[in-house]
Amino acid sequence: MKKLQTSRRKLLSLAGGLATLTACAKKETPTELGKPLSKYGDRSPHETSVRTLPPADSPTPSTGSSRTPLQDSYGIITPSSLHFERHHSGVPDIDPAKHQLLLHGLVNQPLMYTLDDLKHFPSVSRIHFVECSGNGRSEYSAALGSTPQASHGLASCSEWTGVPVSALLKEAGLHPDAKWIIAEGADPCHLTRSIPIAKIMDDALLVYAQNGEPLRPEQGYPLRLLLPGYEGNTNIKWLRRMMASAEPAMTTHETAYYTDLLPDGKARQFSLDLEAKSVITRPSGGQKLTYGPGAYEITGLAWSGRGKIARVEISTDNGKTWKDAEMQQPVFGKAFTRFRLMWNWDGQATSIRSRATDETGYLQPTGDELADARGRNYGYHNNQIKTWFVKADGSISHDEHV
Amino acid sequence: MKKLQTSRRKLLSLAGGLATLTACAKKETPTELGKPLSKYGDRSPHETSVRTLPPADSPTPSTGSSRTPLQDSYGIITPSSLHFERHHSGVPDIDPAKHQLLLHGLVNQPLMYTLDDLKHFPSVSRIHFVECSGNGRSEYSAALGSTPQASHGLASCSEWTGVPVSALLKEAGLHPDAKWIIAEGADPCHLTRSIPIAKIMDDALLVYAQNGEPLRPEQGYPLRLLLPGYEGNTNIKWLRRMMASAEPAMTTHETAYYTDLLPDGKARQFSLDLEAKSVITRPSGGQKLTYGPGAYEITGLAWSGRGKIARVEISTDNGKTWKDAEMQQPVFGKAFTRFRLMWNWDGQATSIRSRATDETGYLQPTGDELADARGRNYGYHNNQIKTWFVKADGSISHDEHV
Repeated sequence: MKKLQTSRRKLLSLAGGLATLTACAKKETPTELGKPLSKYGDRSPHETSVRTLPPADSPTPSTGSSRTPLQDSYGIITPSSLHFERHHSGVPDIDPAKHQLLLHGLVNQPLMYTLDDLKHFPSVSRIHFVECSGNGRSEYSAALGSTPQASHGLASCSEWTGVPVSALLKEAGLHPDAKWIIAEGADPCHLTRSIPIAKIMDDALLVYAQNGEPLRPEQGYPLRLLLPGYEGNTNIKWLRRMMASAEPAMTTHETAYYTDLLPDGKARQFSLDLEAKSVITRPSGGQKLTYGPGAYEITGLAWSGRGKIARVEISTDNGKTWKDAEMQQPVFGKAFTRFRLMWNWDGQATSIRSRATDETGYLQPTGDELADARGRNYGYHNNQIKTWFVKADGSISHDEHV
Repeated sequence: MKKLQTSRRKLLSLAGGLATLTACAKKETPTELGKPLSKYGDRSPHETSVRTLPPADSPTPSTGSSRTPLQDSYGIITPSSLHFERHHSGVPDIDPAKHQLLLHGLVNQPLMYTLDDLKHFPSVSRIHFVECSGNGRSEYSAALGSTPQASHGLASCSEWTGVPVSALLKEAGLHPDAKWIIAEGADPCHLTRSIPIAKIMDDALLVYAQNGEPLRPEQGYPLRLLLPGYEGNTNIKWLRRMMASAEPAMTTHETAYYTDLLPDGKARQFSLDLEAKSVITRPSGGQKLTYGPGAYEITGLAWSGRGKIARVEISTDNGKTWKDAEMQQPVFGKAFTRFRLMWNWDGQATSIRSRATDETGYLQPTGDELADARGRNYGYHNNQIKTWFVKADGSISHDEHV
């Protein structure tokens, strides 16, 4: 660790320290008690970091997305209150006592489960990210995301608790011809996606809890299909039905949406894995290096839908050279990985960026590499390296020319 | 895994399944959008689990404690809104822009830090429990805690982010004579505790974030001293001062309170380590085995202030025999460890209990063993094995005779 400069910290003379102590001592007798105990706490009114919403004049405020303020994040857990949202017809109000899950189709015994039934199964808890496949869409355009929230805020990470879907399929008896599970939500539009059976049997969960308490309404309360590493919309919220099928259902959201039109005019369909990605969250666009030249911590988040992050590198010289960042331990598979690196800023204009490598050996690409491979005909699955530009006055921007 | 009985699940005939599907299909056209996107989410209004408060007629509602509803917990993270509270003079309202930390005493250079200064240091994030040393006091009395919240709810676990205290001491230059750090809070009573310097240099953190966002007010916003594994009150909240000293300060809260009067009339002082403990959270007091005889998951939490939990055993036959529970991986040091074991209940009255062993080899004692070693003159540090009694009708109680 490099020595931090102390220029802006108050160096106290012993006399100064004693004066402060005297001032403290005068307050030693409490004059007024603080706020009382409470049943369910809230954050400080001094804290104002929020999810960003669509414009206030949106004709459909229920749909669309809100973004996690990643520039204000710490560690790897996203507070449930700030977990990004992506709704296709708003958040339904569901009474958990009445909610049921139907499991049917190519099974020996169709079954209906209440929430209590699902909690009666052996439970598992895992830390995983969820990410909208549209996260990073801004980076395909000229109007690059100006903050980590704007560029990468459609990703969040929680400790989820629930039951493996495979346990239910074992109980129902899966027919050998079943190759897909058609999962349907109880939101007004009944968002429905087809999931390969191999993924379901591998690590799919039916989750009823998030970060130690029941799922939040925006995350599918009371029941969500969690598909670690798969694009967000397939993690069906407000889950009410799973049908085993020989074929995918070819629903609206896997034909008209969530496909990737390639340069040759063909489209990638069921491009479900989210590839390795990273973003520096601090210092980042809109922030400032307020302590002048000297030591700063660069920190950010990396994740991959294909497993653990194996390496995160940071360049502070416009991509010329790279240094390995330290990764917060332990590293979880298909989860946010917090990375950190101390940087001694020389006070000159430069740019900083990160790139992640996952345990499959896949290296996060540059924007040009991504465009060469897949073109720019669609807005999903953009995992290109994100650059922040540092000016000599310490201000940081998403745009070299701002 | 044992086969779960399905008697209470709805077994659907194919015809029944199709009827359900038809009913679903009729709702396919959305008629009304759900709730809109939001800036900072809240839990479902259907969820009512809360921290327990002192009686409503308490003359000092600001002081005392509120308890985490552990019977409703999932995984290892406690939601910040449900993290237990223990205040000695209420929750102060502190403007983080004005808050400062004074570091002085036996140091070469007294220093004053703002929050920004502290965030300028290299940061670390770690998952740790915090527990009040009075947790389990009920188990010393005849009126045993009737639920995990009542018996063990003064413990919670979060992902904390901050800066090692050792980094600040390095900057200030610690004098060789300094053996203690006197830490003082900015609450009205200025709660002050003396911490051995070895602990400070080992793993003490100044934390400004909890579960991905700034500390909650009840947890010391904007700055808390986190002493992993030390009794809760030493983890000074609203931290405003640390003084390096050759001797402990012998404050009110380490002389009149938080000492352990032993049978020989002497008292243990600075009994700061929290020893290995565990509690079954489900099924537990006040709950019921509603599916009749058959398979149930027993789950709970274990923790130790001395490191990782190495083993959790469960007895379902009144303590005669013990089976190893599965521990949620990875196991973190000085953190909640979630354990789980499938149990095939034969429908007879019995009792269930858990016992934890930590990585030092220490085994959680019975109440009698604890009493033999330390007597019953004080109310702190009770880590005795907790028993839940199961009646033939499936109801569960803390008391064999209820």
